[in-house]
Amino acid sequence: MRKMDYQNVKGTQDYLPDQEDAKRTIRRTLEDTFIAYGCRPLETPILNYTELMASKYAGGAEILQEMYCLTDRGERDLALRYDLTIPFAKVVAMNPSLTMPFKRYEIGKVFRDGPIKAGRYREFTQCDVDIVGVESQAAEAELMMMALEAFQKLELPVEIQFNNRKLLYGLLQQFGVPEEKMNRVLLVLDKMEKVSVDAMMRELIELELAENCLVDIQSFIESKAELTIEYFTGLEQDNPDLQQGLVKLDELSSYLVRLGIADVCRFNPFLARGLEIYTGTIYEIFLEDGTIRSSIGSGGRYDNAIGGLLKSGQTFSTVGISFGLDVILYAFEQSGRVGKRAMTDLYIIPVGTIPEAMKLAVRLRKAGRRVEVELSGKKVNKAMERANREQIPEVIVFGENELQNGFFDIKDMASGATTRVKYPVGSLM
Amino acid sequence: MRKMDYQNVKGTQDYLPDQEDAKRTIRRTLEDTFIAYGCRPLETPILNYTELMASKYAGGAEILQEMYCLTDRGERDLALRYDLTIPFAKVVAMNPSLTMPFKRYEIGKVFRDGPIKAGRYREFTQCDVDIVGVESQAAEAELMMMALEAFQKLELPVEIQFNNRKLLYGLLQQFGVPEEKMNRVLLVLDKMEKVSVDAMMRELIELELAENCLVDIQSFIESKAELTIEYFTGLEQDNPDLQQGLVKLDELSSYLVRLGIADVCRFNPFLARGLEIYTGTIYEIFLEDGTIRSSIGSGGRYDNAIGGLLKSGQTFSTVGISFGLDVILYAFEQSGRVGKRAMTDLYIIPVGTIPEAMKLAVRLRKAGRRVEVELSGKKVNKAMERANREQIPEVIVFGENELQNGFFDIKDMASGATTRVKYPVGSLM
Repeated sequence: MRKMDYQNVKGTQDYLPDQEDAKRTIRRTLEDTFIAYGCRPLETPILNYTELMASKYAGGAEILQEMYCLTDRGERDLALRYDLTIPFAKVVAMNPSLTMPFKRYEIGKVFRDGPIKAGRYREFTQCDVDIVGVESQAAEAELMMMALEAFQKLELPVEIQFNNRKLLYGLLQQFGVPEEKMNRVLLVLDKMEKVSVDAMMRELIELELAENCLVDIQSFIESKAELTIEYFTGLEQDNPDLQQGLVKLDELSSYLVRLGIADVCRFNPFLARGLEIYTGTIYEIFLEDGTIRSSIGSGGRYDNAIGGLLKSGQTFSTVGISFGLDVILYAFEQSGRVGKRAMTDLYIIPVGTIPEAMKLAVRLRKAGRRVEVELSGKKVNKAMERANREQIPEVIVFGENELQNGFFDIKDMASGATTRVKYPVGSLM
Repeated sequence: MRKMDYQNVKGTQDYLPDQEDAKRTIRRTLEDTFIAYGCRPLETPILNYTELMASKYAGGAEILQEMYCLTDRGERDLALRYDLTIPFAKVVAMNPSLTMPFKRYEIGKVFRDGPIKAGRYREFTQCDVDIVGVESQAAEAELMMMALEAFQKLELPVEIQFNNRKLLYGLLQQFGVPEEKMNRVLLVLDKMEKVSVDAMMRELIELELAENCLVDIQSFIESKAELTIEYFTGLEQDNPDLQQGLVKLDELSSYLVRLGIADVCRFNPFLARGLEIYTGTIYEIFLEDGTIRSSIGSGGRYDNAIGGLLKSGQTFSTVGISFGLDVILYAFEQSGRVGKRAMTDLYIIPVGTIPEAMKLAVRLRKAGRRVEVELSGKKVNKAMERANREQIPEVIVFGENELQNGFFDIKDMASGATTRVKYPVGSLM
């Protein structure tokens, strides 16, 4: 009987109350954690100049193909933001008076007109923290510690994998991977956790690398289990990128040990991350139980992005982390934690006493309770059915009798027990 | 020294930390009030089919001109939502299994490519509550009561003006205003609070109404002070719209009296509201002190919108209210309530002890404090200057001495007083 075939646009969805209730829990938990770490809130527009979103140090060619573009009535070329990083870099570039280090969080919608799959949409919410103005690996360590604390509060056990882009880059240089094939090789290695060695090698062979280069990469892949930071430190290295990567990894590693979080942070020399923006440490967060194979948060150091927007050539040490609200919601759903919670504590069913029931509700809300009054004139038995269906824990039937005699009964829906509450007669009239 | 002339797109803005902190307060206060009233959260997409946003019972011709339109990679005709009402109506139309009455809130961004002025942007945040499934004026009364409670918590004294579209419509019919000029006359009368009687009459004369019609309208306008609901009830009425409007106004009025909120709710027979969507009660919320002349919230009954999306011809009693987050932020700014609050409780300045200071911070956060650790290696006096500038109330300087001897001093930045705290030596190492 539909007039139009209503459906949502591909890649978008409605979050119905159970889902949205869980999303609010996730959002507030993250936000409160960010605030506890001294992060300042920021909100940037969804509408941006295409020129900004497509600037050199932004998301890279792949993401630009996924940009939603439009023109406004002033004929401006606009794009919907595809992440919160470039808008953040813009704010730092536009506001030289910001005190450094500047640590901010932003939670907001981003848009990518790309492929969709379970837990991955075209319109989705990111929760980002970025620190600008800290050169040392203390910034990375703090963000990793903060992430672990947030997921502990969300009761989602996680592992953080980390690497340094320079280490992997330098290593591949030593193996003889030519500059122009570097990014494609990085993308193949990044699949380590998802595909077999054979599958990876087949992809690498397609890239037409030199024979000895392929041999070196294969032996690197196959020695996976031995590849600790110490392993690399022990080798004689004369590649500057590789050396720098190792120094930073040692520094980060020492922080993780001293902060007592080394056991849930694992060095993964194959971690590459797709985005070209990163210049140093990179990390990804995975659910410990593996129910979701892709990462539920990630980030790293990108020292060139903000400076890249400015003529001055100034460098801004910048490290960020991003949590995907939708993928965390998906984790909640997978673990059966959505839709299990009543959204109302108490339901008042008035019988010819709507205004008085509304006044009673005001009092009960002042005591911190979530109270709904049945306003539609439903009969008591229909209303009771509703209370059961919506798992509302307590119900008050409030009629003429309750009004005249100054008491009402709170019924516990699980046990059926009732508790009588007295109040001054006339005080609700 | 800018590489590009970075600026935000016209009608959009960045909310820097002080503003965003105030916005979060407003947002959470509204959200918590909505939840206390038993509202369910909902989140709808920003991207919608143009066909939906432009459907008959949507925002009307004026708003459609302000729609941002775009095409995705699948060549779909899309529009950014300009309100949260049509997306809500769509959700109800698409989900026949929702239990009625259904009371939901949504807080989200909306987009209108229209004229801008102080506190009015092209990308802004609305906070909406709608109730579907309640025929009686109890729904309107509850939303008005909820709004008053929210603004009380926000410490913004307000007055709610209300009217019934049918009353005004019926009255103008009686005066002889022809159907095709009705909406334009309503828009003129809606300016009652903003312009003089002469200015209104000049606009009405331009509409080329009959002489006796103009006389009737003028005498109606001039008798403003006497126009109570009782005044209209006392007149002999034979216009069905006018009669129905009066019945509903009497019902609503009786609720307001019995709920004890009649003193802050004022009947205003000239209130018209621009949108054609409304079918009954309408209301607007104004700051009592008049520092902002436009309304900071508004809504009403729109019984045809959801049914208008369905073939079945079914009617859905629907009442909504919408709060403008940006205009409430503007009210906060006007009353000097933005930027007055420290966003960190405690600032730890490590001197060669960053990891240990980070561990100390973890402990202090567990006690509910917002703690920032200086990670950039700033010297103590520079860090102290920062603490002063950012109005951080307490500071700990944490060096080798504090680490070896198992104590630290918390300095109260306002008084200069220090409090010594002891802890087990070695527990932070």
